[in-house]
Amino acid sequence: MTLEAIRYRTGSLQVLNQLLLPHQTVYDEIRSVQDAYEAIKSMKVRGAPAIAIVGCLSLAVELRAGAGGDDPVTFIRESLCHLTSARPTAVNMGRAARELMEFAENESMEKNSEQLRESVIAWIEDMLERDVNDNRKIGNYGAQHILSGVPRDSVTVLTHCNTGSLATAGYGTALGVVRSLHALGRLKRVYCTETRPYNQGSRLTAYEMVAEGIPATLITDSMAALTMREMDITAVVVGADRVVANGDTANKVGTYQLAIAAKHHGIPFYVAAPSTSCDLSLESGRDIIIEVRPPEELTSINGVPVAAPGIEVWNPAFDVTPHQLITGGIITELGVFLPSELQAALTGRLTAL
Amino acid sequence: MTLEAIRYRTGSLQVLNQLLLPHQTVYDEIRSVQDAYEAIKSMKVRGAPAIAIVGCLSLAVELRAGAGGDDPVTFIRESLCHLTSARPTAVNMGRAARELMEFAENESMEKNSEQLRESVIAWIEDMLERDVNDNRKIGNYGAQHILSGVPRDSVTVLTHCNTGSLATAGYGTALGVVRSLHALGRLKRVYCTETRPYNQGSRLTAYEMVAEGIPATLITDSMAALTMREMDITAVVVGADRVVANGDTANKVGTYQLAIAAKHHGIPFYVAAPSTSCDLSLESGRDIIIEVRPPEELTSINGVPVAAPGIEVWNPAFDVTPHQLITGGIITELGVFLPSELQAALTGRLTAL
Repeated sequence: MTLEAIRYRTGSLQVLNQLLLPHQTVYDEIRSVQDAYEAIKSMKVRGAPAIAIVGCLSLAVELRAGAGGDDPVTFIRESLCHLTSARPTAVNMGRAARELMEFAENESMEKNSEQLRESVIAWIEDMLERDVNDNRKIGNYGAQHILSGVPRDSVTVLTHCNTGSLATAGYGTALGVVRSLHALGRLKRVYCTETRPYNQGSRLTAYEMVAEGIPATLITDSMAALTMREMDITAVVVGADRVVANGDTANKVGTYQLAIAAKHHGIPFYVAAPSTSCDLSLESGRDIIIEVRPPEELTSINGVPVAAPGIEVWNPAFDVTPHQLITGGIITELGVFLPSELQAALTGRLTAL
Repeated sequence: MTLEAIRYRTGSLQVLNQLLLPHQTVYDEIRSVQDAYEAIKSMKVRGAPAIAIVGCLSLAVELRAGAGGDDPVTFIRESLCHLTSARPTAVNMGRAARELMEFAENESMEKNSEQLRESVIAWIEDMLERDVNDNRKIGNYGAQHILSGVPRDSVTVLTHCNTGSLATAGYGTALGVVRSLHALGRLKRVYCTETRPYNQGSRLTAYEMVAEGIPATLITDSMAALTMREMDITAVVVGADRVVANGDTANKVGTYQLAIAAKHHGIPFYVAAPSTSCDLSLESGRDIIIEVRPPEELTSINGVPVAAPGIEVWNPAFDVTPHQLITGGIITELGVFLPSELQAALTGRLTAL
């Protein structure tokens, strides 16, 4: 049974409140776009794909109840605009808003209000289903690729940050690969880094693994290389915030260091990402700007100071892993590709696996 | 002005209470061997060299007040036995106890009680002075070696854990090198890893750097490789728990990963350690047993749970860096040596720098 962070049935939406994790498991009812806005703003819901899905689903819930009356297009536009403003840097919500708005405007030319509501709801429900299905494909392609050529009965993998049900529409990307390996009965164990400074590994990935009974061990970020040497790691699998044309990958800070350590140990390093996270408009990772976040993420935990007062802090949220270090491949819903194959694969000039 | 963690004047001893750091700076009076035992046991004082120094100095304080009466040898033996039992794994206290006991027994053959007390006190005061002087030599040799061949005005270094005044008799080993670079006016900045799970970097190294106005920036352990790439790091300098005959070095977990990242970036990697931390009785690092510590160090901070309940944890306290990755050299009070030169240097068959 996969952990369900987003519970949607037509007309009803609940989200797992991530502010209370890992200590309490509480689902909050999302009855309106405003409820979703507040859940996103307060980080009850996080992870760029999850934010977009929850935002759009809240719109579907309101539309099901007849919101927008005789002018649903205006209601949809204002709702999407409001939702996008909750976490403006989460790109997926912005992209979903543009696509959905274009769809709604086209539909409005030939449909009445009631029909328009129905078709927009269907579009949003499709989006949820497609995202989960894409993640399952990523999981299966990744698992098969890791297992191919591995003579052993079972494999041990190492992952970073949280890329599971709590960050996506469901199932997960890198953690989807872990889930698929487990479902196949071929996962011996997954090692999860705690992922400082925001501890997505120890709070969220650990929570998902415990919830589903997947054998998992938590380590600090500093123990990854030692784990690679001592624990017979078959592969390292991480997610991506953005993969650019040459395969360079921006992801949670620490990914670059893991890729260097994996290379040193001759362990294949995989990036798992839906094609929607690939940005072919950028040539190389040099063009990606790294977000620097507040010092307090390092100097305090749950509001309690832990570092020496007055110390300066550098807190980049992401790093860029050069494609040369992505030795296993990039796992997408279309198959597993070498960084050098990615562009051709995504533009339909190559089919793989 | 170097931060003084151990304040000793003949007959009087105070230690900086590390349990209250980094938020309060409080010196506790150590009036007796029992006071020192409790300070060590409760970890008011930590760091293997500091434990040995404080233990022996507490004995000097009692001897100055006439402790042991007509049979100081018995008093010294019982005191050292008690002190060694406070943290039995801290090897330096055990070694100091053996050496001091041998000295005291020899002295007792030709001296009366009062003369014996005087000579033991002098031995202990010498030990303090020698340790601080050795650290200053390490600092200066290391600084000169790093600066040799660097055309720039100033250098930027990266360090791990705490190897400063708070872990040694004073000045520090790797942090002694940082202090010497700063004293020479050649330190642009030092990057300190927070050093999970026990946060010696964010709590203690950051405290020392702020206290002395040395330009320092705190990063998470996962940011080290990115820092090497982005921040023009001249050298990485770490301490050592044990250096064995071939140069393999056991040190705080995360050191191995830093060494791999430094090699990847072509940055010299240095280990700073007094010759007393070198153990030529072991051939290679394969013979070093890695201490595994309680899961709670990862799953809670200051007693507050931070990880998902039920998650398994692997918490090795140290790792071993193979000598091939120690590309800068091993910095001792005798000079800076390549790992392959260490054995000859320590046995007097080679003089260096």
